[in-house]
Amino acid sequence: MNLFNPIIPGKTRRSAKKPGLPPGSLVFTGTRKTDRSIIEVIDYDSEKVHEQKEAKPSDLLPFRDQTTVTWIDIKGLHDIEMIREIGEHFAIHPLVLEDILNVNQRPKTEITENYINVVLKMLTFSKSANKVEAEQVSIVVGENYVITFQERKDDVFDPLRDRIRNSKGRIRTMGADYLCYALLDIITDHYFLMLEKIGEQMEDFEEELMEGPRKETLRQLYILKRENMLLRKSVWPLREVISQLERSESKLIHRKTTPYLRDLYDHTIQVIDTVETYRDLVAGLLELYLSSVSNRMNEVMKVLTIIATIFIPLTFIAGIYGMNFHYMPELEWPWAYFAVLMIMLLTGVGMLFYFRRKKWI
Amino acid sequence: MNLFNPIIPGKTRRSAKKPGLPPGSLVFTGTRKTDRSIIEVIDYDSEKVHEQKEAKPSDLLPFRDQTTVTWIDIKGLHDIEMIREIGEHFAIHPLVLEDILNVNQRPKTEITENYINVVLKMLTFSKSANKVEAEQVSIVVGENYVITFQERKDDVFDPLRDRIRNSKGRIRTMGADYLCYALLDIITDHYFLMLEKIGEQMEDFEEELMEGPRKETLRQLYILKRENMLLRKSVWPLREVISQLERSESKLIHRKTTPYLRDLYDHTIQVIDTVETYRDLVAGLLELYLSSVSNRMNEVMKVLTIIATIFIPLTFIAGIYGMNFHYMPELEWPWAYFAVLMIMLLTGVGMLFYFRRKKWI
Amino acid sequence: MNLFNPIIPGKTRRSAKKPGLPPGSLVFTGTRKTDRSIIEVIDYDSEKVHEQKEAKPSDLLPFRDQTTVTWIDIKGLHDIEMIREIGEHFAIHPLVLEDILNVNQRPKTEITENYINVVLKMLTFSKSANKVEAEQVSIVVGENYVITFQERKDDVFDPLRDRIRNSKGRIRTMGADYLCYALLDIITDHYFLMLEKIGEQMEDFEEELMEGPRKETLRQLYILKRENMLLRKSVWPLREVISQLERSESKLIHRKTTPYLRDLYDHTIQVIDTVETYRDLVAGLLELYLSSVSNRMNEVMKVLTIIATIFIPLTFIAGIYGMNFHYMPELEWPWAYFAVLMIMLLTGVGMLFYFRRKKWI
Amino acid sequence: MNLFNPIIPGKTRRSAKKPGLPPGSLVFTGTRKTDRSIIEVIDYDSEKVHEQKEAKPSDLLPFRDQTTVTWIDIKGLHDIEMIREIGEHFAIHPLVLEDILNVNQRPKTEITENYINVVLKMLTFSKSANKVEAEQVSIVVGENYVITFQERKDDVFDPLRDRIRNSKGRIRTMGADYLCYALLDIITDHYFLMLEKIGEQMEDFEEELMEGPRKETLRQLYILKRENMLLRKSVWPLREVISQLERSESKLIHRKTTPYLRDLYDHTIQVIDTVETYRDLVAGLLELYLSSVSNRMNEVMKVLTIIATIFIPLTFIAGIYGMNFHYMPELEWPWAYFAVLMIMLLTGVGMLFYFRRKKWI
Amino acid sequence: MNLFNPIIPGKTRRSAKKPGLPPGSLVFTGTRKTDRSIIEVIDYDSEKVHEQKEAKPSDLLPFRDQTTVTWIDIKGLHDIEMIREIGEHFAIHPLVLEDILNVNQRPKTEITENYINVVLKMLTFSKSANKVEAEQVSIVVGENYVITFQERKDDVFDPLRDRIRNSKGRIRTMGADYLCYALLDIITDHYFLMLEKIGEQMEDFEEELMEGPRKETLRQLYILKRENMLLRKSVWPLREVISQLERSESKLIHRKTTPYLRDLYDHTIQVIDTVETYRDLVAGLLELYLSSVSNRMNEVMKVLTIIATIFIPLTFIAGIYGMNFHYMPELEWPWAYFAVLMIMLLTGVGMLFYFRRKKWI
Repeated sequence: MNLFNPIIPGKTRRSAKKPGLPPGSLVFTGTRKTDRSIIEVIDYDSEKVHEQKEAKPSDLLPFRDQTTVTWIDIKGLHDIEMIREIGEHFAIHPLVLEDILNVNQRPKTEITENYINVVLKMLTFSKSANKVEAEQVSIVVGENYVITFQERKDDVFDPLRDRIRNSKGRIRTMGADYLCYALLDIITDHYFLMLEKIGEQMEDFEEELMEGPRKETLRQLYILKRENMLLRKSVWPLREVISQLERSESKLIHRKTTPYLRDLYDHTIQVIDTVETYRDLVAGLLELYLSSVSNRMNEVMKVLTIIATIFIPLTFIAGIYGMNFHYMPELEWPWAYFAVLMIMLLTGVGMLFYFRRKKWI
Repeated sequence: MNLFNPIIPGKTRRSAKKPGLPPGSLVFTGTRKTDRSIIEVIDYDSEKVHEQKEAKPSDLLPFRDQTTVTWIDIKGLHDIEMIREIGEHFAIHPLVLEDILNVNQRPKTEITENYINVVLKMLTFSKSANKVEAEQVSIVVGENYVITFQERKDDVFDPLRDRIRNSKGRIRTMGADYLCYALLDIITDHYFLMLEKIGEQMEDFEEELMEGPRKETLRQLYILKRENMLLRKSVWPLREVISQLERSESKLIHRKTTPYLRDLYDHTIQVIDTVETYRDLVAGLLELYLSSVSNRMNEVMKVLTIIATIFIPLTFIAGIYGMNFHYMPELEWPWAYFAVLMIMLLTGVGMLFYFRRKKWI
Repeated sequence: MNLFNPIIPGKTRRSAKKPGLPPGSLVFTGTRKTDRSIIEVIDYDSEKVHEQKEAKPSDLLPFRDQTTVTWIDIKGLHDIEMIREIGEHFAIHPLVLEDILNVNQRPKTEITENYINVVLKMLTFSKSANKVEAEQVSIVVGENYVITFQERKDDVFDPLRDRIRNSKGRIRTMGADYLCYALLDIITDHYFLMLEKIGEQMEDFEEELMEGPRKETLRQLYILKRENMLLRKSVWPLREVISQLERSESKLIHRKTTPYLRDLYDHTIQVIDTVETYRDLVAGLLELYLSSVSNRMNEVMKVLTIIATIFIPLTFIAGIYGMNFHYMPELEWPWAYFAVLMIMLLTGVGMLFYFRRKKWI
Repeated sequence: MNLFNPIIPGKTRRSAKKPGLPPGSLVFTGTRKTDRSIIEVIDYDSEKVHEQKEAKPSDLLPFRDQTTVTWIDIKGLHDIEMIREIGEHFAIHPLVLEDILNVNQRPKTEITENYINVVLKMLTFSKSANKVEAEQVSIVVGENYVITFQERKDDVFDPLRDRIRNSKGRIRTMGADYLCYALLDIITDHYFLMLEKIGEQMEDFEEELMEGPRKETLRQLYILKRENMLLRKSVWPLREVISQLERSESKLIHRKTTPYLRDLYDHTIQVIDTVETYRDLVAGLLELYLSSVSNRMNEVMKVLTIIATIFIPLTFIAGIYGMNFHYMPELEWPWAYFAVLMIMLLTGVGMLFYFRRKKWI
Repeated sequence: MNLFNPIIPGKTRRSAKKPGLPPGSLVFTGTRKTDRSIIEVIDYDSEKVHEQKEAKPSDLLPFRDQTTVTWIDIKGLHDIEMIREIGEHFAIHPLVLEDILNVNQRPKTEITENYINVVLKMLTFSKSANKVEAEQVSIVVGENYVITFQERKDDVFDPLRDRIRNSKGRIRTMGADYLCYALLDIITDHYFLMLEKIGEQMEDFEEELMEGPRKETLRQLYILKRENMLLRKSVWPLREVISQLERSESKLIHRKTTPYLRDLYDHTIQVIDTVETYRDLVAGLLELYLSSVSNRMNEVMKVLTIIATIFIPLTFIAGIYGMNFHYMPELEWPWAYFAVLMIMLLTGVGMLFYFRRKKWI
């Protein structure tokens, strides 16, 4: 079981890139998550939509200079040659391509004269593995085109594709910058979904803890804590990423799109707020768990010790009359046995009474 | 029991909004807390007051351009159609309306040319549920009107309505910005009431802890801690909200109102200060509780162990003379039994004495 | 016992002010600490001093426009009417008066064109209650006058009055701003006295802890911690208060007074430094206490358990030869009893020896 | 075993420099890690490469003013005379030379008109010692030359030397500033390698902890924590070092090199991010370890105590019928023995049952 | 034993100055550490040196206006009259003199037109008391003179005096600002010495803890922690002090001296870095100590409990056959005794085996 995978980037990061390679060397540092790289193209303006399911890199060139908005979606990053080709078509700097292929890249925004590059994490909840999975998405926005780079085939952008096809909302009337915003908005919405999942888990834990802690809880709380750490690591740079986009004075971001980016920025703040609240809550749950366990344990030990404490003196009394001295006058007395039994009973009840008055039981 | 509801926004937040909906889609994300949406209108200037208890959206239009100050109070946010209509009347941006309907919105101020939108939490103490309840209130301030959006019918603004009706204070002589300030002032005053409630609870806890911790205390302290977290989450952005209003150079905020806003800002600082102090106090109480419990437990265990420790050696002595060896000279001695009893007594008393001198009991 | 009183402002704060009162409503939020409000006036310049022990508000008016420096000292804040009258005489804004009467006000400086208002806490050590007491002092500084508002009759300003009377130092040759500085200086000097008291208490605790912790120590440490929190709450805003005075470019603060204010600012930094150090020290003491208690407890339990552990096997041996089997050859052997006693002795000594070699005792 | 060596610089730092020596006194504060100092020279431009394996200081002079890029690599810092000579050749300020020789120097960048000095730590993983080792590397960049000062012969720059020899990447076409960047890039890449090593160790620990904590784990976790502290101490100033280089407006850094430095800066941010995550993870592991140990211990003690608690009352019953009273009617009853055995059995089973129902076992 | 003395300044601070004294009143707040105040003068330029071992205040006047650099070293601060006289000679502001005499002054730099005043702590390791001792040193730097105020006769400046006498380094060719730098440099170098001492102590502790914690360790760790707090309190303001000097644009600091001050600033950063690392290390050691003690204790208790747990059931078996029932068939069987012994042995061995398999021993 490799729990650390998504959290400790050092583990796999750049492991494929031998230190000493020239900068700008294209190396895919992730694990291959799809058979072959697929290029999907959607080209649209307010009038018409044109889709191409499996395009070749050479098909992409004309789109660069058309006035229609073109969304080029690349799924699968292991085909380095193809990505280099596309990078050259669109004049993307080798260092930017290196960042796109390095799937352990910290979320960041790079603004150049001709394009903007946004790298961030897309979080999805994998039902099969029952855990949050992070995938790197890079978005390159030019004058009339948006290129998205994803590791996997499945993504969360289908509703957006439908909106483009069906001309829902204002997407068809706006430019590439709005498309980029729409992509970021969907990704951020999914952060809220993740928070919801984690919130539900925490609620379950809390109820469980209130009823009585179980042994596995410690481990589960630890994993919950780590999942939160993953979220924090993805979320904090996200704020910076969106903020840089919003405040940039690049001509690629039109004035009409800015209010949307500001709204998005507010959402990232809210995500961060919630993640920080979760952090405190997990810490509180852990504290509650440890105190509960300790209280419970103490209760058990106290009762057990009280039982022993009551019987040890009684056993001592029995021991006295089990001695074999020849001259023990009490032994002869006919009522002695019953008297001793009575004394034992009284001693025991007296101790119980005393312990209860002391509020020990 | 759903303890998390007010604290973990991820739980319910945007759960109604499927990721992928176009931005500006109006979705009410709360739970319906009132039968039907009601619109109350108070229109006043220094001369006269006009009230309308249940207005229709279409009634509101004329007020926009009158020079009198109009307070439009909307109670109940589930009637999306009505809110969209009002939004269009007053030319409010769809993204702002989306924020107003999203009751998990982080408190914020949005300043545009024609209106200012303030979103914040109103805290009230529900006597029936015996806990603090948070409700989102949005205030849209224009040139001559203030629109408030509330989730529920009951609110805390009645004293303000009376002041308008009876012309108490300077409210009737000032503009819409002062009305907005007065609303914020009442909401902030209620924060102090909440702090008072929590302060009383903490005082009770402290007295309880000083007397001796009870089992339920841990759980209650945990809930107290969470309530504080809720407060912090509402209070910290509040400061920013008021500060933005105060520092804004919008023509909607008149110079005469600024000192009042600065005073309000000071109050929010004081609320934050107190919340932070509470946080430290709760942490201190928890520490005190855990130490008390542990000390108490230790005392009990020590006494029990001392009892056992005294009797175990005595039982051993009894055990010796309970052995059945044929040649045990002591058994024959006539005074042996009493001697052994005496030895046991001395051993026991000696141990007690030793333990007391060591300050163990 | 109301321990929370001075620390949790929410408890009493504004409890007298019903939310919804118009801003600027004068409400005294403290508890009446003196029979009747007294106004003391000292009027001086470098030539002469004039004192008036019990002035009426109407007596104060002429002082406002004289070139001599006038110190108006108001003791007792419950006479709202009188304070409103004075406020009107000196044209003090109602919001400022509200702050002066609200004794739970956070320390702050308000600089207007005609006067400066400083609100801060005066700490005194009450010998009778054996604890630090906080009282709110407000200072309004105008061109030629200083008005101080205190809750109680006793104050710490007597040495300053003597300096004015006896013309000690440069007080008589400087203006109202220097008088304000002198008042602040005395209040700050008393913070050092409080720190000294708390420092002594901590030293006592430390010695006590080194000798061996007592049961009450936990509670006392907790109270010490809370007293520190009170100090912090008063001290941190103090820095800001003085710093605002120093950096203000108000014409009410003359250039000659600035070095004194800077010196005062250095003192507040030092107070904060010390309070922070105390905080760490108290945390350290608490840690030391808990570890000491736990170590001590462990020692006791270990010794007790060792005693039991040694005797239980011996009792078992005795138990064997207490069995009543008919065919137990050892029972017949004449030296068996002594052999068994010897074995028991050896077992016990052996265990003791083993435990000591293991460094368990 | 000297664990502190790399972490506590105070230990060895300046221990060789007696306080009071004039500033700029050259003192090598490290331990001699190589037999003799070696000077290696590589001189190149886009056309040709010239290498000199063991140069004398006097050989270096001509390189200063040639337009080719010259990399002078000095291995071994104990030959103070030689370093002074080189420093004079290249007009390096004595304080800079002092920093270069003081191997406990905090990473820093010093920018002067004629050269830039970068001091930082090179981390390598020593397989023999199985731990991370830190070595100080200083880089002096002039117009046409780069001088590197290393403590040891082995370094991590071989791939770069190959790139220069084989003209791989753009190194041969760029200036001294790019060479400096390339050196820093390799060093930073090695930080990622170190993080990977530590990440693997943590993963192992976690698996170990999930299975059950061992005794050595505490000590190993402590060492892991300390290694992280070493990393943090090297990494935080690194960010500042690179950032100063990037933002410097020195004419020695050409505009073409800036994007590379910004990329490098992003890498250092990522290193810091990861180190901080590790810190939290180690803290979490420690917490998990302590809770696991405590839980485990509690389980053991509970079972043991339950065994004792069951048998102590049974022993008491046996003790009763071991008493030697003459008149104990039960002793005569023929079925009494079996009845008592049955009672004992029932008592034992009953207790077991009760404990299980209480979920104690 | 007065452990708090150097750390809690509130204890002794200003205890001699009654609150209410006019500002600028000269009060020596330390304890007299030398018999009588001594004034030593060294006057030098690049040509000649003139020394005067015991000067009178009146001797000092001519030096103020000579172009040679004069170092006036005052040892012992209790002679207030003398210090006032010197202060008047050199036109030092009374508030500055007050700071110089108040030996609990927080380190600070005061820059005026005619002189710069630096107050800081000199740390020395007292071999006799085996602890770090702090002494306040104030340095007043004018155009051509430096006045140092020390509490004691012994100081750390002898190597500097030698350098002046023997004209080592560049001290004789530079001005008063360089002399001030040289003094600060020596004081800072001694901070490193202190860090070394504390580092050694920590190393010893760590080794001790690895072997097994002793009882005194807790107390020693606590003292170590406190010593670190003292260091932090002295060190943090030091940075500010040097930084203010470096960044000041006073004409008293020549441009040639600035690089030296920057170097010094780097050293203070390194001292702070190390102190912070020490803080984390001490916290780590304390954690390690507590965990070790607890682990050790648990081990002991476990073994003891196991011994008891094994023998209690055996004693029960023996107890059964010690019962005196008349009809106990087993008692008659000839091999019963040996069988029971065997059963006991098997039970004991079985339990041991079970415990070992469960990894409890």
